[in-house]
Amino acid sequence: MTEDTFQSSDSVRSGRPLKHVQTFPIDGPLPLEMGGELHGVVVAYETYGELNAARDNAILVCHAISGDSHVARHDGDDGDEPGWWDLVVGPGKAIDTDRYFVICSNVLGGCRGTTGPGSVNPATGRRYGADFPTVTEGDMVEVERRLVDGLGIDRLLAVVGGSMGGHQALLWATRFPDRLRGVVTLATSTRLTTQALAFDIVGRNAIRRDPDFKGGRYLDEDTAPAVGLALARMLGHITYLSPEGMRAKFGANRLSPREMDTEFEKQFSVGSYLAHQGNKFVERFDANSYIRLSLAMDLFDLGDTPEKIAANLRPASCRWLVISFTSDWLFPPSQSQDLVRALVALGQPVSYCNVVSSCGHDAFLLPDELPVYGGLIGAFLENVTDDSPKAVEDDDLYVLSPESIFGALRRPRIDYDQIGRLIEPGASVLDLGCGRGSFLAKLRQDRARKLLGLDIHEGNILYCLQRGLDAVQADLNSGLGTFPDGRFDYVVLSQTLQSVRDVEQLVREMLRVGRRSVVSFPNFAYYKLREMLLGEGRSPVSSGILRHEWYNTPNIRFFSITDFEDFCAKRGITVHERLALDTEMGRLVEEDANRLADMAIFVISK
Amino acid sequence: MTEDTFQSSDSVRSGRPLKHVQTFPIDGPLPLEMGGELHGVVVAYETYGELNAARDNAILVCHAISGDSHVARHDGDDGDEPGWWDLVVGPGKAIDTDRYFVICSNVLGGCRGTTGPGSVNPATGRRYGADFPTVTEGDMVEVERRLVDGLGIDRLLAVVGGSMGGHQALLWATRFPDRLRGVVTLATSTRLTTQALAFDIVGRNAIRRDPDFKGGRYLDEDTAPAVGLALARMLGHITYLSPEGMRAKFGANRLSPREMDTEFEKQFSVGSYLAHQGNKFVERFDANSYIRLSLAMDLFDLGDTPEKIAANLRPASCRWLVISFTSDWLFPPSQSQDLVRALVALGQPVSYCNVVSSCGHDAFLLPDELPVYGGLIGAFLENVTDDSPKAVEDDDLYVLSPESIFGALRRPRIDYDQIGRLIEPGASVLDLGCGRGSFLAKLRQDRARKLLGLDIHEGNILYCLQRGLDAVQADLNSGLGTFPDGRFDYVVLSQTLQSVRDVEQLVREMLRVGRRSVVSFPNFAYYKLREMLLGEGRSPVSSGILRHEWYNTPNIRFFSITDFEDFCAKRGITVHERLALDTEMGRLVEEDANRLADMAIFVISK
Repeated sequence: MTEDTFQSSDSVRSGRPLKHVQTFPIDGPLPLEMGGELHGVVVAYETYGELNAARDNAILVCHAISGDSHVARHDGDDGDEPGWWDLVVGPGKAIDTDRYFVICSNVLGGCRGTTGPGSVNPATGRRYGADFPTVTEGDMVEVERRLVDGLGIDRLLAVVGGSMGGHQALLWATRFPDRLRGVVTLATSTRLTTQALAFDIVGRNAIRRDPDFKGGRYLDEDTAPAVGLALARMLGHITYLSPEGMRAKFGANRLSPREMDTEFEKQFSVGSYLAHQGNKFVERFDANSYIRLSLAMDLFDLGDTPEKIAANLRPASCRWLVISFTSDWLFPPSQSQDLVRALVALGQPVSYCNVVSSCGHDAFLLPDELPVYGGLIGAFLENVTDDSPKAVEDDDLYVLSPESIFGALRRPRIDYDQIGRLIEPGASVLDLGCGRGSFLAKLRQDRARKLLGLDIHEGNILYCLQRGLDAVQADLNSGLGTFPDGRFDYVVLSQTLQSVRDVEQLVREMLRVGRRSVVSFPNFAYYKLREMLLGEGRSPVSSGILRHEWYNTPNIRFFSITDFEDFCAKRGITVHERLALDTEMGRLVEEDANRLADMAIFVISK
Repeated sequence: MTEDTFQSSDSVRSGRPLKHVQTFPIDGPLPLEMGGELHGVVVAYETYGELNAARDNAILVCHAISGDSHVARHDGDDGDEPGWWDLVVGPGKAIDTDRYFVICSNVLGGCRGTTGPGSVNPATGRRYGADFPTVTEGDMVEVERRLVDGLGIDRLLAVVGGSMGGHQALLWATRFPDRLRGVVTLATSTRLTTQALAFDIVGRNAIRRDPDFKGGRYLDEDTAPAVGLALARMLGHITYLSPEGMRAKFGANRLSPREMDTEFEKQFSVGSYLAHQGNKFVERFDANSYIRLSLAMDLFDLGDTPEKIAANLRPASCRWLVISFTSDWLFPPSQSQDLVRALVALGQPVSYCNVVSSCGHDAFLLPDELPVYGGLIGAFLENVTDDSPKAVEDDDLYVLSPESIFGALRRPRIDYDQIGRLIEPGASVLDLGCGRGSFLAKLRQDRARKLLGLDIHEGNILYCLQRGLDAVQADLNSGLGTFPDGRFDYVVLSQTLQSVRDVEQLVREMLRVGRRSVVSFPNFAYYKLREMLLGEGRSPVSSGILRHEWYNTPNIRFFSITDFEDFCAKRGITVHERLALDTEMGRLVEEDANRLADMAIFVISK
């Protein structure tokens, strides 16, 4: 929500008018969701790059509460102010203005060019001030939609937004599903937490109870609730940072405030920082706007459970990228995860990453994690309209990791081949622990299917997106959450069961979510392993999947084909197929499998 | 920090004077840490129960920022107001006023009877107001110490406090080490997080910038900064609750505010709640006091790393109980854990529990987790002066859990006997994964030693305290943190290594923290286990330590005596002793141990 840091504060733009800002008049009255209508609405916006001939390379970027239309510097005009998202938008950047036509407009109710409480009411000839009606984020996207109409764009390539901008992106997807191909949300939610709502309320109370607020009519009296607005901003600012980030920034020099001219307390370093942020904000923001925008966020509600969210998002029909940040406690990752679960429940193509960061809610505006979130955005945009199979590095199917229990294979992975053979063309597939997506990419080469990968590692999610695959970051040990029953034709768990903490839960979840499940695992009753324990009295080690030592192996479950058969039998799990493999020889084992096979593949269902 | 809930709000006392409040005049001037002195200081206090003839049953309870001397109702006087800690203090309660003499005084700078900004300055005959000097928590405990002197108490049984009260308890321990036996802290820290400090600053700014504050001289002008103080309280209140607690309380009826008479925003249920809390607080609290007390908390600093904390706590010489709450984000558990590490580093006897709660910082004032935190306090007080060995239920050494790998034993546990034999009398011992303390209790029966247990389970910590043992809640998978090198003569890890995720880290840590380490584990090369895998092709199961199935066993590391010997050899770990046991027969195995022993005990060091 803020791009400002203590260090860079001097470079932040003040209230000066920006070059390149264009205005677009909305035709006719704008009816408002909470009642009433606005006349003569004007939208301030900026564009970057060129709209192509097909008019299908346009991306709308939605700003957060304190942002505006100036998302980036304009090409070749270094005299312009830095944009609030220069890091991401520009030539060769994640949102590449050499390829895409980027639009960013100031929101309805704002104070940076678009009609808001500081605008003149055409009915009275005076500024709205307190009379400006309550606007919603739905009203904001309606204005944006009319702007996009006015620009002659039928279908946006994507709508991208963080925080409040993410709310708008969600509304675009549900209200105008045929007007966009993809949505990217960062650090957002389907509604504020009660805690975030409470902070907003305290901030608004600080403004409204400032005697200079004059019931919102301060413009008429030539005053401004500077103290209240600064307090609201100080409070907001705390919520945009993480506790660990604040400690790193102010912990060591706690009692060394910056010398500055302020009537706010500056006994502590963090105090002078907050005073600075508060004072600076007052210079460039209007209190009535702040009240309207924060209230619009508070009223935004697409549900607080995956079920309610799914009901609200049902109209959407696009590809999704959802990004959260681990240390964001204002819009906590669990909210993005609920959104993702809802989208999976709806069968909408979605990717998700919870980016590790100590930057709190502000992370999406800061350079620290740019390689990850920028990389994800870039890869997503690259593939958002592209359903065609991508060429896959052949190597991935051989040497990514040595997947035979006895070492790296030099021929195509027999288990991938076998599992691929078991899945009929066109079936939908969820790959648990998908890694870099090698298996899914192979499936897609054969024929386009509805494919989704799950993996715990940030880097693997990025890799999958670069390949054009949808992938969701998740810890299998937490189960499959609210993925709905029977969502996928197949759920695949390839050589991962032996490293799972709660085996029973995961198998139960697989059987629930998939019509059929495919499980492959190393067979610990393989005769060579038995002999290691029997003959040498040592825990088995090999150069393959068992290459780890007993004290550091991720394989924490030791079981055989017979053990797994017993497990299924006791639970009434139907075994449709059981393949026993000798991966060293690259062949199926027909007889005495529990002794002679080093790997097994089971197809099971409830 | 607050005992108020929405439901019980009407029962909360207003500003009426309380019965039973006594006053104690401090002799002579009181010099202040930040400069200046106060004359004619008076302390308001209340007492509960009877001081015994030995005058050694007195407990001082220190209140949090919005509390006062009225910690509980007085016996047999139901007409009195409820106390802020009625849950804990009273006849038969955790702090049992039938046994202990409880003292609680209003802090210096407060507004509930003790000298503060609302008091009359004897030098001027007018109320201090803005002229009241900056006081520290050190000044507060100095006043408390003089009160305790005045009551003729040489040594307190304990000082107990939560939040700001916990700060005072810490200062008591360091400044007057010979004046107390034990300290109990709840939801406290050795200094505020930067985030908590920042919230305090915003709250003070709201008060100071309220035009009715008049530079603190509002009493002279017969006004009061009611808006600023209410804003500070609203903000504070958010920080006392947890996000999950707020969601549970206000999530469902988000848009249903309580009807009330207020000028604060009440568009949302949480908004009317905060307005109610803010308005109510203004009725009973003085703004200058709030500023002084919150500033005193902000200035409190016993260090922010275990090393600095240890340096500051070095003078202390008492027994400690530290309690934190999992959902407390204002005084996060990590801060209590740093305190505990510092105390362990100093070799001071300490117990610690991170109580699972969704009640946030307020948890120590609420009934939800009372059975745990009240139980811990009661058990601690019971044993605070008692170093004598306690009778131990014999059963614990037999049947607590079946510790032979082949089932429950009917004779004394041979591994306990053997390990006990290996540890010389008087040695200090850290028992990792101490469970309910059976082994430590056995050690202590033989001879008093410096003993500490570590366990992950809340219930086990409570059990150990009830036995008079010191126990610290910790997850062995997180390592031993900043426990200092060579702190213990012996570190014991009994039949736990096989369930540890990061074996190398834990062994390294044990070797660092203990002069010697004792490790016992089941031997997976035991011939009966080999035969199960060899003969049946199944993962070994028994009725003992291996009674779990492959898919749910906590034993995730499979290794033999030979494996462990190799492990030690590769790392240059010295093996001082190796005992091989046949636990079924209850005897030592001398020959062919890796095949014939089902359990092993190693004594190792760097």
